[in-house]
Amino acid sequence: MQNIGIVGGTGYTGVELLRLLAQHPQARVRTITSRKDAGTRVADMFASLRGAYDLKFADPAEAELAACNVVFFATPHGVAMAQARELKAAGVKVIDLAADFRLKDAAVFEHWYGMPHSCTDLLAESVYGLPEMNREAIRGAQIVGNPGCYPTAVQLGFLPLIEAGIVDLDHLIADCKSGVSGAGRKAELGLAFCEAYDNFKAYSVKGHRHHPEIVQGLQQAAKRPLKLVFTPHLTPMIRGIHATLYARLTDTSVDLQRLYETRYANEPFVDVMPAGSMPDTRSVRSANTLRIAVHRPQGGDMVLILAVLDNLVKGAAGQAIQNMNLMCGLAETTGLTALPVLP
Amino acid sequence: MQNIGIVGGTGYTGVELLRLLAQHPQARVRTITSRKDAGTRVADMFASLRGAYDLKFADPAEAELAACNVVFFATPHGVAMAQARELKAAGVKVIDLAADFRLKDAAVFEHWYGMPHSCTDLLAESVYGLPEMNREAIRGAQIVGNPGCYPTAVQLGFLPLIEAGIVDLDHLIADCKSGVSGAGRKAELGLAFCEAYDNFKAYSVKGHRHHPEIVQGLQQAAKRPLKLVFTPHLTPMIRGIHATLYARLTDTSVDLQRLYETRYANEPFVDVMPAGSMPDTRSVRSANTLRIAVHRPQGGDMVLILAVLDNLVKGAAGQAIQNMNLMCGLAETTGLTALPVLP
Amino acid sequence: MQNIGIVGGTGYTGVELLRLLAQHPQARVRTITSRKDAGTRVADMFASLRGAYDLKFADPAEAELAACNVVFFATPHGVAMAQARELKAAGVKVIDLAADFRLKDAAVFEHWYGMPHSCTDLLAESVYGLPEMNREAIRGAQIVGNPGCYPTAVQLGFLPLIEAGIVDLDHLIADCKSGVSGAGRKAELGLAFCEAYDNFKAYSVKGHRHHPEIVQGLQQAAKRPLKLVFTPHLTPMIRGIHATLYARLTDTSVDLQRLYETRYANEPFVDVMPAGSMPDTRSVRSANTLRIAVHRPQGGDMVLILAVLDNLVKGAAGQAIQNMNLMCGLAETTGLTALPVLP
Amino acid sequence: MQNIGIVGGTGYTGVELLRLLAQHPQARVRTITSRKDAGTRVADMFASLRGAYDLKFADPAEAELAACNVVFFATPHGVAMAQARELKAAGVKVIDLAADFRLKDAAVFEHWYGMPHSCTDLLAESVYGLPEMNREAIRGAQIVGNPGCYPTAVQLGFLPLIEAGIVDLDHLIADCKSGVSGAGRKAELGLAFCEAYDNFKAYSVKGHRHHPEIVQGLQQAAKRPLKLVFTPHLTPMIRGIHATLYARLTDTSVDLQRLYETRYANEPFVDVMPAGSMPDTRSVRSANTLRIAVHRPQGGDMVLILAVLDNLVKGAAGQAIQNMNLMCGLAETTGLTALPVLP
Repeated sequence: MQNIGIVGGTGYTGVELLRLLAQHPQARVRTITSRKDAGTRVADMFASLRGAYDLKFADPAEAELAACNVVFFATPHGVAMAQARELKAAGVKVIDLAADFRLKDAAVFEHWYGMPHSCTDLLAESVYGLPEMNREAIRGAQIVGNPGCYPTAVQLGFLPLIEAGIVDLDHLIADCKSGVSGAGRKAELGLAFCEAYDNFKAYSVKGHRHHPEIVQGLQQAAKRPLKLVFTPHLTPMIRGIHATLYARLTDTSVDLQRLYETRYANEPFVDVMPAGSMPDTRSVRSANTLRIAVHRPQGGDMVLILAVLDNLVKGAAGQAIQNMNLMCGLAETTGLTALPVLP
Repeated sequence: MQNIGIVGGTGYTGVELLRLLAQHPQARVRTITSRKDAGTRVADMFASLRGAYDLKFADPAEAELAACNVVFFATPHGVAMAQARELKAAGVKVIDLAADFRLKDAAVFEHWYGMPHSCTDLLAESVYGLPEMNREAIRGAQIVGNPGCYPTAVQLGFLPLIEAGIVDLDHLIADCKSGVSGAGRKAELGLAFCEAYDNFKAYSVKGHRHHPEIVQGLQQAAKRPLKLVFTPHLTPMIRGIHATLYARLTDTSVDLQRLYETRYANEPFVDVMPAGSMPDTRSVRSANTLRIAVHRPQGGDMVLILAVLDNLVKGAAGQAIQNMNLMCGLAETTGLTALPVLP
Repeated sequence: MQNIGIVGGTGYTGVELLRLLAQHPQARVRTITSRKDAGTRVADMFASLRGAYDLKFADPAEAELAACNVVFFATPHGVAMAQARELKAAGVKVIDLAADFRLKDAAVFEHWYGMPHSCTDLLAESVYGLPEMNREAIRGAQIVGNPGCYPTAVQLGFLPLIEAGIVDLDHLIADCKSGVSGAGRKAELGLAFCEAYDNFKAYSVKGHRHHPEIVQGLQQAAKRPLKLVFTPHLTPMIRGIHATLYARLTDTSVDLQRLYETRYANEPFVDVMPAGSMPDTRSVRSANTLRIAVHRPQGGDMVLILAVLDNLVKGAAGQAIQNMNLMCGLAETTGLTALPVLP
Repeated sequence: MQNIGIVGGTGYTGVELLRLLAQHPQARVRTITSRKDAGTRVADMFASLRGAYDLKFADPAEAELAACNVVFFATPHGVAMAQARELKAAGVKVIDLAADFRLKDAAVFEHWYGMPHSCTDLLAESVYGLPEMNREAIRGAQIVGNPGCYPTAVQLGFLPLIEAGIVDLDHLIADCKSGVSGAGRKAELGLAFCEAYDNFKAYSVKGHRHHPEIVQGLQQAAKRPLKLVFTPHLTPMIRGIHATLYARLTDTSVDLQRLYETRYANEPFVDVMPAGSMPDTRSVRSANTLRIAVHRPQGGDMVLILAVLDNLVKGAAGQAIQNMNLMCGLAETTGLTALPVLP
């Protein structure tokens, strides 16, 4: 049984961790912190957890995180790196759902997140927690940077093409659509119901923090620099990312369907759908699955990839637990087998 | 291990049964029928079930329902009563999610559903499957009429007041709001996205089929006739019923909070919330829980009950499985402990 | 041509005033203020107004409100009463869309709004701007308190019954459902998309500020005290209020349909629908109309009123312009004849 | 005053024509037909039109269309071409909102719409009703094929680039997102609320009927063949199309912002937004405006165009009235100046 600590549990990734961990047979949440809501019972903030948790949010200063086996950071960027050294010394496994351990180049981190990186040595030894790329490294890691939601969809979408070396790497396009929960649980005007409902728009077109993260992963696979246009859009739904990916084939002789099926044959959480499929986001709602379909429009030289995931599960809390399972030597799917809720 | 048959599995209650039963440790779906979609793989119709089911929809004529331990009818009204006799003879337990076995008075059934009742003898021995009212009878039943979604919320909402005999029974009001999935999975203009989205309206004000069902249950508790105004409304969400109930207290000395807490103290799926609470439908989304709160506005002589449930779970498939558990001698909560999905 | 000033134009009632006034043939917005956004062009904040307005938000200290014919306050409560005296002295007509001039009893105002009333003398001479009740007084008023959204629906819904003296005044019930825009344009967690979407709940059950306002109006009509249970609910849509009203008839011989049709026969913005109708909120979306239907469920002694309006139009900005038209001697419907947008 | 006939007025483009024409100072709807709903009052089907129309739907066989000045077809494909010849002979102007007069090549029409074209001679003389491309021809036309919703957005989005000859014409990409009303007012399971709400998906990836229409228009501008990948998506909102367009620049020296501003400088319904803008669909809700923004991500060789319109207005009924204005010699903006409804 793994004793779990959660730092910053009042956001959507925090409550999703609580939901999933309550149903994980090998994990028990021992402490959860919140600066602002210390003393409040978890179930008083989230009625959906009534009966499942007696815990109160603890003051971060008093939480006994060092006594946990695993600590998840569901915090703003910058919090995990301030505590990782101490937890590592105490033998605790650390999984950061924010960006502190995602970007390997501290300068890139500082550019995009506007703060210095305070532990570049830990950054070097930490592992980027995308199991489908880095499974073995994750098993041995003590610090894992859990991927962003868009990067999970876009990297897993492009990966087989890039590994196969059959696309023009200078003109990759990721046209992505996200539900609103991807922006977090915040009192922000742009996230207000009346601003987002019955509306659709692109945002952060000039540059989104997930851009360098995606590029880092794809370049690692390509073993050379590449160029990506990444356009995020906000769509009026709660959960779900739909990545529509475009690339120009440099080799049109490859059986793309087979390429994808082979690449992900043994992946428990990647579902390559039959040829011709168009996955919808609800087909993965509340589950840890990424569904993917491959198209070649009009038989031309463009490949079109459609990939969907639940940004709070495979795009955040579910993937974090998948990483925990790997780090703790548990079966990778433990606690993550619940089916999507549809409709 | 219970072998399960599902008749008519292409609606929302059907797919919800499939979702819940896939995660039920003591049940295995052996056959599922559909007249229209016979031969189609279940997972091809509902991508959310990919990996969980290899089953195809079977032609009703060929399905071996008699070999099952339990058969659920997730069909239009009138189907279950046509097959119940044969299944009963074969020793199969029958749970009808439609209305065939809900109304004890065949004449009332015929009036509201516009068809004769074809097996009034079975109707007599069947049990109305609201465990919080009829638990013991359900345990011994072979045929159960699973309650409607509104009736579950309204009956459980009013029950403590009526059992205590402290409200004016001639002026009960149930102002209910339902998500659209309550109307089923149908190609119907009134259920189209563009008709229901960003819109709110009352419907069936002249008379809704759940009205006699609610009155039947409440009168059984009251042991006398009573009068109810029941106003259903359609609200733009998928799942969820919110019942707002009003009654005039004939005795204002009773501690209402305590009355409800006592009545439902041992109910695993009824959550009486703390005084002052206002439950929201999302707090029970995808779970088998009914949450309820009791108010006495301005300390006057009116009592206000707020009750929420997920119409596809506690209002349909979940309650049906709860009934199955009782009928099969399993722990009542088996397979029904997953937490609500929020947000 | 009326020169118009708007104080506090960055909220939803502000932008709605701008939309409607741009299309008003006898009005021209001369100045609009915002403390926080002074200097910003109106059309830069609301792209929907591009091409229609060159105006920038002005600093309140510098706005020349005294030179306007009419000033609307689309501000938080407490702002209008601080400026009304000066504007009145300058001969400006004042219409407050907040609550400063709604409640005639300053003590009641102070109780519900938590601030002292700073000009009770003006309160006494101001007129409550519900034209269907107070048309003549509004024509002669210099200060008008524009009604709240719920109060407009509930008062116009109950009015014919109360004027006719045919209902039990001690047990009125208003079960109301509102779109989210009723809460204003605010960065507030409870109004966030992910909190309100696919969800339904009651709120402010213990007491909502519109309660005393409704009671004040109904008591004026009844000429005696009365008791109302008022339950507001939040429904996942942007615009729209649906009021479901219940009362016990003390005289069941009255032709209710005719009563309503007669009462509102000459009202340009009240549409009594044919018997049996169930108005939906979208049928009034973006228009200044209140639609209403009268029912007597099962022919019993309860009357059921269904009333819908757009909370930003007939429930706020549209009604404010209707009041302006009356105060300025214009035809009452001027600028308010655009049809609802459906779907 | 133009006397107007509408054939097939019970769909969303029909009711939108009714809404807009009711507010058009130079038009009066004289007759509106519906096979299925003949005899029903328009205002009984669409409560939003109560008070604006006394008309009943007429039987198509009895409607006096030949006596109208202008007849709009808001019908399924194939209806307009069956009646166009007779109306033309009677001197009536015909505007088809379906596809009968969009595709100049009858073989292409037959391939995509699965029916022969019954009047290819009229097809030859008819004009494709995109005023920003064909204004002069429309003025002189008697038969106009009103563009599809996607084609309006995509063509106007790409046009300046193609006219300037500065993009790779073999790899154009149009990633488009549409609200559900684009699919029409139909009882179809895929358009049901519970299927489309809280969900996002691509559709018709193998080939959408708007693909050849877009290509036809762009090739006319390019004066050579070109290749387009067009991916339509369904997003959970009622109105709105968001086109996200990608092209590779063959000349990166052009000032793109200026190019667009110049091209559309005199267009009353095309709004080129300031550099850096990201238009949202609600900013054009219910209005005849297309808003457009130009980006060059990371200053690379890709151009990104964002274009939004209301599919029922600039994408259908509004554009049809714009065409009518041109054909009838009225000011082009007559009746089309109402501002968008936001929020």
